[in-house]
Amino acid sequence: MIANPSYTRLTNTMSKNITLTLTQVHDLAQSALQAQGFSAAQAGAIAATITKAERDECKSHGLFRVPFYVKALANPETDASAQPQLSSLAGSVVRVDAKHGFCPLALQTGLPALADKAREQGIAALAINNAYNIAALWPEVEELAEQGLVAMAFTCANAYVAPAGGTKPVFGTNPMAFSWPRHNRPPLVFDQASSASARGEIQLHLRDGHQLPEGWAIDAEGNPTTDPQAALDGAQLPFGGYKGSAIALMVELLAGALIGDLFSFESSERDIHGSGAPFGGEFVLAINPAQLQQPGSDQEGYLSHAETLFERILQQEGTRLPGDRRFAARQVTASRGVEIPQQLHETIQEYI
Amino acid sequence: MIANPSYTRLTNTMSKNITLTLTQVHDLAQSALQAQGFSAAQAGAIAATITKAERDECKSHGLFRVPFYVKALANPETDASAQPQLSSLAGSVVRVDAKHGFCPLALQTGLPALADKAREQGIAALAINNAYNIAALWPEVEELAEQGLVAMAFTCANAYVAPAGGTKPVFGTNPMAFSWPRHNRPPLVFDQASSASARGEIQLHLRDGHQLPEGWAIDAEGNPTTDPQAALDGAQLPFGGYKGSAIALMVELLAGALIGDLFSFESSERDIHGSGAPFGGEFVLAINPAQLQQPGSDQEGYLSHAETLFERILQQEGTRLPGDRRFAARQVTASRGVEIPQQLHETIQEYI
Repeated sequence: MIANPSYTRLTNTMSKNITLTLTQVHDLAQSALQAQGFSAAQAGAIAATITKAERDECKSHGLFRVPFYVKALANPETDASAQPQLSSLAGSVVRVDAKHGFCPLALQTGLPALADKAREQGIAALAINNAYNIAALWPEVEELAEQGLVAMAFTCANAYVAPAGGTKPVFGTNPMAFSWPRHNRPPLVFDQASSASARGEIQLHLRDGHQLPEGWAIDAEGNPTTDPQAALDGAQLPFGGYKGSAIALMVELLAGALIGDLFSFESSERDIHGSGAPFGGEFVLAINPAQLQQPGSDQEGYLSHAETLFERILQQEGTRLPGDRRFAARQVTASRGVEIPQQLHETIQEYI
Repeated sequence: MIANPSYTRLTNTMSKNITLTLTQVHDLAQSALQAQGFSAAQAGAIAATITKAERDECKSHGLFRVPFYVKALANPETDASAQPQLSSLAGSVVRVDAKHGFCPLALQTGLPALADKAREQGIAALAINNAYNIAALWPEVEELAEQGLVAMAFTCANAYVAPAGGTKPVFGTNPMAFSWPRHNRPPLVFDQASSASARGEIQLHLRDGHQLPEGWAIDAEGNPTTDPQAALDGAQLPFGGYKGSAIALMVELLAGALIGDLFSFESSERDIHGSGAPFGGEFVLAINPAQLQQPGSDQEGYLSHAETLFERILQQEGTRLPGDRRFAARQVTASRGVEIPQQLHETIQEYI
């Protein structure tokens, strides 16, 4: 039986968990995806992002995603063996045509060229087109920051979120990610939806029979709701009212029209097979801080300067830096491995 | 008598208003600033941004600001006759050293070079350093979009805003602005603080004896408050909780450490004369959409593509596009002029 991913259990305290090493996580994901028709290259890139998510205990992007990738193949336009094509569009712009494959391999193809351009020109952009994207954005901005660059990334989704003042879904959950490099420790990274909650959180509330917090969603008539099914049938709300809505709009324009790719509502309309995987673009920026310092200043001083800000924040009890939870998890999972629900493990093994 | 700008009336329904043409607004601002010691070039650039704000009925950045500019001169480090210096830092990066003058003239100096670089390279960045900035960000991103470019701008302020989970001010109100070009109409533009409210709005509530909405601020002990004086003595809150706080942090890093300039808390600590004008950097991005389209596609199609998204939003009752109120005001003020409180007019005339 192939489980419907919407109902696959993300975590389940009632059922048994099993422990896997990170190598086992990678091999399991890669084998399952290849058995389902993904090329070794596509499966390997996806397995790498899934493994990073498990390593950081970002469970909703870990092995939980494998069934989503498999389900995406229900759409005959998907090419699970696509070979992304890299090109240069301008002095500071590179492009990867994902050719209807998945975003992780397109990123693997484009990020080194983006980093090179950024180091050459001070700032550069990467446009990824024609990609199915059901992964998080933090792996790519983190990878760029590990090379000393500052990065931002933007992508649309499907139409789930009503614009401020409206009642019908137009925007995707539209994440924006940002990274800042640090000396001798993981970069500072955030990756946040412009909706009040991730869609998966609403699905988990539905599964568990819980009401939603107020402010997450409206029902199909546009009334505030805390009922998860009514929310899924209605619309999610942007975070922070009209300001979050403006950010969602910006993300649509950057990852859509700016790079000649689809808006979230167009991705939804195109998904006639209900495969659930958003199709379109991703826009990534990389900036080389060493080339933006004031002439005559210490060209590496920006790293220690940023640490003074982080100290200022962290000396206040109750604060933390974005990404800290993921980095803390990383310390543990490298040696102890990760726990996944036995049922999810069985689902994935059935693919092989 | 030189009024304290904090108590100058922004609008006052009790007192009489007078009507000025936009040319009169410009001349009044320019004359007052020059009489107070600003060079013709510095005063002219500031008067131009003040006039744009009055034109758009963005009153808090209109003539209301003149006393703030004058008060900024209380700081002997300010140079009201500074001549900004333009340089190239990398293939896609230009820089303007404002030399302790004000941001509007630095922008006038740097924006044409930024636009040229963006058209040459596809994407480019402008770092403005050593500037006093008490203006809005929308004029610069709008100017770039009027030339067909997509733009973003970021700047810090003084330490007014507590990070999520904390209780003491670290961040500035840290605005982020974005623009998108449109055919035969003003660009789509937003310019929004990463705090729940502008600081000026709290000052207006104090003056008028009104309580604040919940969620704007905490008092000095870190408790939620709706008392405006307690809010000013405590800390403002980011919009949208930890997500707005992450955006405020990103703005600090982009307009601070990335370009070798001050964080908001450093600007505050430096302002020993209480001049109130944030000192530091501004970071501006410009992107040429024509160079980011998919090969073989209609190279101007992105403009009409974006309009399909705007239509999708506006067909929902209750929605609007960012900037629409300012653009509607513009239609009226060009012919009818603008109203300003007689008391503000008198205050400014006393400068001359």
